Parts: sequence; C-alpha cells; structure tokens
Amino acid sequence: MAGPLVVVGGNAGGMTAAAEARRGAPDLEIVVLERGEHVSYATCGIPYLVAGEVASEDDLVHHDPASFMRERGIEVRTDAGVAAIDPEARVVTTADGRRQPYGALVIATGARPVRPDIPGIDLPGVVSLRHLPSARGPRRILAAASDPRVVLIGSGPIGVEMAEAALALGARVTIAESRPYAVPALGEEPAARVARALSEAHVEVRTRARVQGIERAGETLEVVIDGDRVPADLVVLGTGVVPEAGLAREAGCATGEAGAIAVDRRGRTSVEGIWAAGDCAVAHHRVLGRPVWIPLATTATAQGRIVGRDVTGRPGRFPGVLGSWVSRFGEVAFGATGIDAAAAAAEGFAPRVVTREGSDRSAYMPGARDVLVRLVWDEATGRLLGGQMAGSGEVSTRLHTVSTAISAGMTIGELAACDFGYAPPLSPLRDPVELAAAAAVGDAA
Amino acid sequence: MAGPLVVVGGNAGGMTAAAEARRGAPDLEIVVLERGEHVSYATCGIPYLVAGEVASEDDLVHHDPASFMRERGIEVRTDAGVAAIDPEARVVTTADGRRQPYGALVIATGARPVRPDIPGIDLPGVVSLRHLPSARGPRRILAAASDPRVVLIGSGPIGVEMAEAALALGARVTIAESRPYAVPALGEEPAARVARALSEAHVEVRTRARVQGIERAGETLEVVIDGDRVPADLVVLGTGVVPEAGLAREAGCATGEAGAIAVDRRGRTSVEGIWAAGDCAVAHHRVLGRPVWIPLATTATAQGRIVGRDVTGRPGRFPGVLGSWVSRFGEVAFGATGIDAAAAAAEGFAPRVVTREGSDRSAYMPGARDVLVRLVWDEATGRLLGGQMAGSGEVSTRLHTVSTAISAGMTIGELAACDFGYAPPLSPLRDPVELAAAAAVGDAA
Repeated sequence: MAGPLVVVGGNAGGMTAAAEARRGAPDLEIVVLERGEHVSYATCGIPYLVAGEVASEDDLVHHDPASFMRERGIEVRTDAGVAAIDPEARVVTTADGRRQPYGALVIATGARPVRPDIPGIDLPGVVSLRHLPSARGPRRILAAASDPRVVLIGSGPIGVEMAEAALALGARVTIAESRPYAVPALGEEPAARVARALSEAHVEVRTRARVQGIERAGETLEVVIDGDRVPADLVVLGTGVVPEAGLAREAGCATGEAGAIAVDRRGRTSVEGIWAAGDCAVAHHRVLGRPVWIPLATTATAQGRIVGRDVTGRPGRFPGVLGSWVSRFGEVAFGATGIDAAAAAAEGFAPRVVTREGSDRSAYMPGARDVLVRLVWDEATGRLLGGQMAGSGEVSTRLHTVSTAISAGMTIGELAACDFGYAPPLSPLRDPVELAAAAAVGDAA
Repeated sequence: MAGPLVVVGGNAGGMTAAAEARRGAPDLEIVVLERGEHVSYATCGIPYLVAGEVASEDDLVHHDPASFMRERGIEVRTDAGVAAIDPEARVVTTADGRRQPYGALVIATGARPVRPDIPGIDLPGVVSLRHLPSARGPRRILAAASDPRVVLIGSGPIGVEMAEAALALGARVTIAESRPYAVPALGEEPAARVARALSEAHVEVRTRARVQGIERAGETLEVVIDGDRVPADLVVLGTGVVPEAGLAREAGCATGEAGAIAVDRRGRTSVEGIWAAGDCAVAHHRVLGRPVWIPLATTATAQGRIVGRDVTGRPGRFPGVLGSWVSRFGEVAFGATGIDAAAAAAEGFAPRVVTREGSDRSAYMPGARDVLVRLVWDEATGRLLGGQMAGSGEVSTRLHTVSTAISAGMTIGELAACDFGYAPPLSPLRDPVELAAAAAVGDAA
C-alpha cells in the first residue's frame, strides 16, 4: 500500500479495523480521525452510565487515544471530523482544513439518532443518546428535579433500557410507542412478557401513540401524546438511527439498504481504495442471503476485523449477521436472532411460529425463573429462521444457541434433538429452547 | 400388538416410553413394573434433597402411580421387581411369582452404584445415592452429629454436589479422588477452576488417593486414605454406576459397551419384542458414530420417547447423544459436552485444545463473573468435537451452544463466526465461547 491507512471514525468498526490492520502490518502507518472526544468506547453502556450503575465515562472507554500510539503505534486524532474525501488524489481533508493522504481509507462513521419531525424536538431537555457525553444531560436533569418525570419516545431496546435507568434515578416514566405494543421487534408473546415487567414497575406504556409536540411548561416540558399533555423533565428519543453515509456518498461510494454504504463481503466499497465497516455500512445477512442494514456493535467489530485484514492483504469473507440482540428491563431479559415471521413471509418462506414458556431449571428448585421461547421456522424445509425470547431466567445465552442453530442451517427438528446438559439447579431436564422446538415437531411429551 | 405393553422400571426411560406409547395408542393396555416405592422421580435432585434445598421427597416425584392410571390409563405397580423374562412365551415373572404376559416389553432397569472392593464398604454410614429413600440416611446422620464429618469417595458431579450438600448441613468435607485432580472429566483448566472453589469452601481434596479401608471408630467411622485415618460420620460413594442389564442378559438380549443392553437406533434389543431405554442401555454417540454407555437422565428420556413411538408403530431414529452434563459447586457451575482430547485422539482425530477465560458480561458492569471455556477440535477438518466449561458465570446454556454446534457438525471457525447478541449487563461484546473459538482460529484481536 502506498501511503498510510486512514480510518475515519474511532469506535467499534474503525478501531477494530485499525487494530486488526496493525496485527497484519507491523510497520504500516495508521491514522484514526475521530470527530468526537473519545474513541473505542462502549456506546451500549450509556444507559448504565445514566443510571449510575457504571460510575464514570472512563469505565466505558476501552482504550484512550494515547494508549493506541503507545501500545500499537496507531495515531489517533480526536476532534478531527473529516469534511471531504478526494478518492482520486487519495486525500482526506479534516474540518480544520488539514489534508491527510491515504493509501487505504476505512470509513467507519457510524450512525446518528433519528430526530423525528415533532414540534419542539429541539427544546433543551429533549435528548438522543449516542456518544458518551450524551449521558451527562440526562443525569444532570434527573438529579436536579425533585420529582423527575421522563418521557421516552420509542420502546426499542434503548428506550426500555433508559426506562430502567430513569426508574433507578427515581423518575416516573412514560413510554410512547407508535406501534400496537412495546418492543415490537420481539413479536407478540415475548413483548407481552416485557410489557408485564414494565407494568409491574409502574412504567406507563402508551401504545399506538402519536407524539404531537413537545412544549415548554415553566421550568420543564410537556409532551403532547394523543392530545394528552404529559409532563416531562427529560424526553429521550429512542426512535432509531440512520447511517452516517454522507461523506462516503460524496466521495462516490454506492449506497444500499437504508442509505448505508454498500460493501462486499470483504468490506470494500464501490470506490477503489475505500473500505467501510460498522453502523455506516450494510452487512450480509445469513438467512436472507443479501445485504441488510442492522446497526449493532457486534456487527461493527466483526466487519472491522474483516476490513483490517483485507486492507493488509489477508482477504476474508464476512460470514454474515443474524441481527442478534439482547436487552434487559430489571429482572427481565429479552432479545432476538434471525428473522421474524413477517420478514420470513416477505422473503418467500412459509413461516410457522411456536411459543413455549419453560423454567430455567427444575421447577422444584428454589429460585426457578421463566423463559419464554418463540421460534420461527420454514414449514417447507423445516429450516430454523429466527428466535425471540423474554423472561427472568437466562435469555442471552439461550439466544446464542438459537443463533448457532440458524447459522448451521439446522431444521427445527434438529434443534429439538440436540443434547443439552441437565442439572436441577442449573438447567431443566428439557431446556425451554428444546421444549419449544420439540413442540413444533410434535415431540413435546 | 398382541397383549399389553409392559415396562420394567418406572423412572425416566420407562415412564417416558409408557407416556409416549399412550400418545400413540390410546387403547393399549400399559403396565409399568417398578421394584422400588416411587416412579417418575428426579434422581438428579437427590443431593438437593440431602441439603434441604428441596424440602421433601414428594417435591422430586413428578407423578405418583395413581395419577398415571387416572390421567393416562397407565397401570403402575410399585414394589414389583421382575425376576425373569420368558421371551418365547412373552411373559415376565415378578419377584412375588406373578406372571404378566406382554405383547411388547420395554426394559428400563437403570443402573446401580458401583460399590468398590474396599474393606468396610458395607458398614452402616457408607451410602450410595440412587433412589429417593437413599437421601434419608445421610440427612439423619448429619443431623445427629454435633460436628459432622463427611468423606466422599470420587469427585464426579455427584461427589461434588454432595460436597455442597454436606457443607450446607454444617459438615467438614474430605473428597478422595483416585485420579490426579478433582472432576477429571472436565479436563485440566476447568477442573482447576472447580478445585479453587472447593478449596475456598475448605473442602479437603485428596488426589491420587487410595482408599484402603473403612473402619468403625466408636460411634463413627474412619476412612483410611493413603495411610491416614480420616474421621467420618458419613461416607458417600461417588464411584460411578454400572448398567442393570442382568435381567435382559438372562432373557437373551445382547449387551454392548460396559455391559449395557445393546439397542439399535429404534431402541430394539437383539430379542424380538423387547426394547430397552435409559441407563441400562447403550446409546448412539453423535461424534463417535457408534454406541456408547453414558448414563444420563436426558438420554433416558430421549430414548424413552423413541421406544414409546417404536412400540406403537411410529418408528423414529435416535439422533444420538453428546454426553452433555452440567453440575454445580456453590457459585461455580461446570460441565462438558462432546468428547475430550484423549477420547478424540483414541478415535483417530488430531485433537487440538483451546482454553479462554472470559467475562459473562461487559467487564465494567457490576457483578461480572468468569466463564472458562475449553474447546476441543480436529486439526485435520476443523470440526468441533467437544467443550468443557467452569465458572461463576452462566455455564449450562453456553454448553448448550457448544452442543448445538457439535450436533450441526460445525467447524471451530464457524462457531467463532456466529452472531451472538450483546448487551453490557447480559452478554459481553464477544462471548467467552466466541472468544475461545476465535482464539483457536487466530482471530482473537
């Protein structure tokens, strides 16, 4: 490669690409340009920073910029937003006008929160979470209020995690969800399990809700939801993100799903010498067999590794994602992997769905907890397509099992026939995952 | 079928076969003959019954004999040991001389504890655990002693679970293990994790130990271990089990591994009209591709389902076992699935082993716990062969994931490439299973 490796964006995708490139090319000059003040931090830890469960921003920073230079010889410049890319000259220009030549360029600009078109959306006290400093406002506002009220717009994982954080800080919480039920990505029964936990914690969930505006009301705010005025010291937007693909687009990179940067399975964009990784880029989906845009830290790091190898002459092939995610509200964990029934039908599968609730250990053992398992499979082939779960028992690693089965191309009958260890205090004679799969194939005796 | 279905043995394998046969044949006469006082109970719950964590024997009984008749029309006779089988006449004779004709016979006689050839092994206070009543003696002895001492011979899962139970009842505990380290089935590093937990709980573990005899010493016992006299109010044998195959052998059924009843993948013995299921029988192993004898409740119920179907004209094919098991000592869970490196080498594989310790959630979250993952794979093909784990974090369902990957025939690289959900309080960015697999394929950056 003639010239340095330049990485635009210093979080999961970018820093992983840089670190992996260093492993393959000990002498390569590597420069990371990050527009914010931190690199290599745990975005997904922000709700726990707000809650105070994580004590300080520093705890969420895996590596500081100086340590990258010291330990890996990677130059990291913060407050270094990139204004333009010249792919012919192979030069990027930062916001302060500095020109940085590159031999290879990795774009890892991430995604940014959607700010819906609601009157009052730009009022102080209406926040999105994305970078570490975005935890500061919510903490300050909730600490200052004597009887804090929080309105969360959207009930995806971030909305629900922020509900938990707000409750931990003594707030009363309202969630406004435009769809018929909270956490719609889970499907009906697992979502109902989360709804029960929200209700038991006295979180008000307003479904099919239309947020009509946000207004000042003295020192605080009021959110107008379906004509009702809901007081709020803090409004948190959990209305999704969009890819930060503008810079790449202006450089000529083709875009794909949701406007994210199109990349092949080696992480290369349509422009010679430019790769992309992370939330700004599409990713190959294992079940759908084509690119999707599902921004997740796991995907970003996996893409970063592939890109870091490819730019240093060790081409790989991105294995693909299943969009696996997991989240928590209080004692109830929930998550999903693969595709749901609606997506399966849209894709031409003949989806069938089975749902079973089981115990996380032998029911006679003290402390037994519930796990609700929903599996989606294709009736024509038996192929397992997706899984969604919720419960007070262990959910995240049970989703690992379903994800593994989907990745392997297993049928639901093959999943039912797996041999899972059993011990009364740890895992029941038939695991909830096995029970659900067995029920699907009429083998539930 | 001419004549009733008779099932000999009323626990996991037998009762599952009976219940499954009922599903397939609503009008079939079904008779279960059980020599003990209970049927359908959780043998694996016995250590928790001893500990008092489970309050009563009834809690471990899934169904009483009368309920089988009432709810499923299955006649269950307890205290009905079978003395002989006449496969020509298709009649079994019980110990009290009653003759019971059968159309089909399922032998599910289980296994019995090994009583090693040690002087004093038959003294009162030296016990094996197998049936629910066997919990009574240990509870009574430990309750009566003012400073109870327990010696456990053998450090398999039952030995370690009984160590936990004895500690819960205030006992001082010594484990005598003949092999170089405790819980040898785990392999060295996971076994060392359990050894650390045992040590922290002040359990004395004597390895490479030779138990030379057990002697009376006033009101209690002394166990002579390598010349030392270790006092004991209670001695528990955790020295394994052997199949109860004598009855079947006398009826002409061929036996296989470890003297267990040979069955095909439909559960049929070599004698027409006789099936077998559970701890008395062999089972097909998925990795080895041949029958093995690994007595486990999970295998017994899976075999019972296959047999119950086959006897009622719905032949299936037993999918095979991986010998998956899991156990616990205090806060540390441990277990294994598939085969270890020694077995793999003996089988002609070129085994490689990787071990990694990871956190069960993001390390910055409060309460993060350790999970040690050891994976065995075949260097020639990459095929995953086995996994062993130990740690204070979630182990049992992580073993489910490895078991699923082995069942699917995944390579270790394919396991490394699985897409696992991540949330800081639930599951780390890279799961310990993924980390171990990634390290194996040089992908651990």
